[in-house]
Amino acid sequence: MKNSRLASFRVGGQTRFGLVTEAGIVDLTGRFPGLQEAVAAGALEALVAEAQGRAPDHVAADVTFLPPLASPGKILCVGVNYPDRNAEYKDGQAAPERPSLFIRFPQSFVGHGENLIRPPESHQLDYEGEIALVIGKPGRRIAREAAYDHVAALTLCNEGTIRDWVRHAKFNVTQGKNWDRSGALGPWLVPFRSADQLDDIALTTRVNGEVRQEDRTSRMIYDFRYIISYVSTFCRLEPGDILVCGTPTGAGARLDPPRWLQPGDVVEVEAEGIGILRNGVEDEVC
Amino acid sequence: MKNSRLASFRVGGQTRFGLVTEAGIVDLTGRFPGLQEAVAAGALEALVAEAQGRAPDHVAADVTFLPPLASPGKILCVGVNYPDRNAEYKDGQAAPERPSLFIRFPQSFVGHGENLIRPPESHQLDYEGEIALVIGKPGRRIAREAAYDHVAALTLCNEGTIRDWVRHAKFNVTQGKNWDRSGALGPWLVPFRSADQLDDIALTTRVNGEVRQEDRTSRMIYDFRYIISYVSTFCRLEPGDILVCGTPTGAGARLDPPRWLQPGDVVEVEAEGIGILRNGVEDEVC
Repeated sequence: MKNSRLASFRVGGQTRFGLVTEAGIVDLTGRFPGLQEAVAAGALEALVAEAQGRAPDHVAADVTFLPPLASPGKILCVGVNYPDRNAEYKDGQAAPERPSLFIRFPQSFVGHGENLIRPPESHQLDYEGEIALVIGKPGRRIAREAAYDHVAALTLCNEGTIRDWVRHAKFNVTQGKNWDRSGALGPWLVPFRSADQLDDIALTTRVNGEVRQEDRTSRMIYDFRYIISYVSTFCRLEPGDILVCGTPTGAGARLDPPRWLQPGDVVEVEAEGIGILRNGVEDEVC
Repeated sequence: MKNSRLASFRVGGQTRFGLVTEAGIVDLTGRFPGLQEAVAAGALEALVAEAQGRAPDHVAADVTFLPPLASPGKILCVGVNYPDRNAEYKDGQAAPERPSLFIRFPQSFVGHGENLIRPPESHQLDYEGEIALVIGKPGRRIAREAAYDHVAALTLCNEGTIRDWVRHAKFNVTQGKNWDRSGALGPWLVPFRSADQLDDIALTTRVNGEVRQEDRTSRMIYDFRYIISYVSTFCRLEPGDILVCGTPTGAGARLDPPRWLQPGDVVEVEAEGIGILRNGVEDEVC
């Protein structure tokens, strides 16, 4: 199989991980406590090999998917990274020379299949479909040319945002991007083997089946290699760090009138060769 | 002693922690792997009691201080939080209603006595003296009135900044605030016992003995209780989280002409009842 899929999940009250196949999930728990440790050990391909020829242990419908890594060290997100996204801001400013970056805490994400939470403080819950890189090899000041050597795996992110809280303050989007369980990571890790898994793939976001965002990674303003090189200029990247690489135009905030997510909506983020990250929406019970 | 001081440090190749007294450091390693676990267990006062009457095990000069917590879950920083700081931006805008927040990674901090690192990419290394709260009790949507119940301890932060990288992009200060080893946390944790340890204390920053920043916490735009309440609105605070509460006017960038930190400089951040966080500066060797 070109693109293997390694997922973290809960089943029977236990946290486990395994290879997701058409026939079901081959449980690989044992050699490592979790996928995080397997990433750090550079062992994703070994796990895939270990699963070959084995019958599945779980039916996918029986498990609860978790974000692929239990506790990523750093989650850095790139803002405004597809054509027309800068124009969406309508502030008359040219596209900036360098990417906006912000940080999300792991607790702001749920796994595949879980509901995003709309809090009582705001009804402006919005989607942003993105591709996320999982770092496998540490490095500081990584050259563009060597950047892909540091990628262990790919996954998807619904970089869910409480839109009015993004501009709550004078600077920084922190509080609009860090509501607990407002976004999603998953559904799984796809081990990274070659550049064609990243360089020109389609990225699409649908709400209740309607296409809202659609673009190709070849059109990114700051490409994946640049992001790795730029971020590692100021901080050392470590195995298990995650870089969330920006969303195409068409988030709900940019529609006229804006269209926010509602309880019962289903959001799908899909990228070629990675899969579909699907999440419902529910109101928080406080 | 009114304000006890619990420090993490390395000595003899080991990471340890203990109570810092005038006579030396009483080693308390054993019951907990580190101060992080002691904070989570609500055991800081028990540790202080355990040290009573014991002779010191280490001379302070023999140990290398570490940031007090080995791996804080979340480090949230408040921007623009003392009078005149908003005016320093000279953008004609009124003070905002809500605080700017940004996130720093633990790897951006060194401990007390270590050198801050000036990277070759920029010579605009700047200091920002701040008071930091260490959360002891978890909570979401914490009421102002209950906010101090969630504080386990106080420490200091030199929220060192690579100033030109704060404005590298269109939004967000992330990359100017997250250079590896560009700031400091420490020198120790002071267990939090009563509001008078926070509500009107002096905060001073000196460079080579010259006072550069000087203000009192009673003049903060967003007070400590508000910060805890506001942040916990969107994300659950957990034991070991750190809130860095903003810096007075007078950072090097605001002087005319600006005065950046240079190798050999000594920066001291001092707050009444907490202590002095002292750091040198050195150029990075790449």
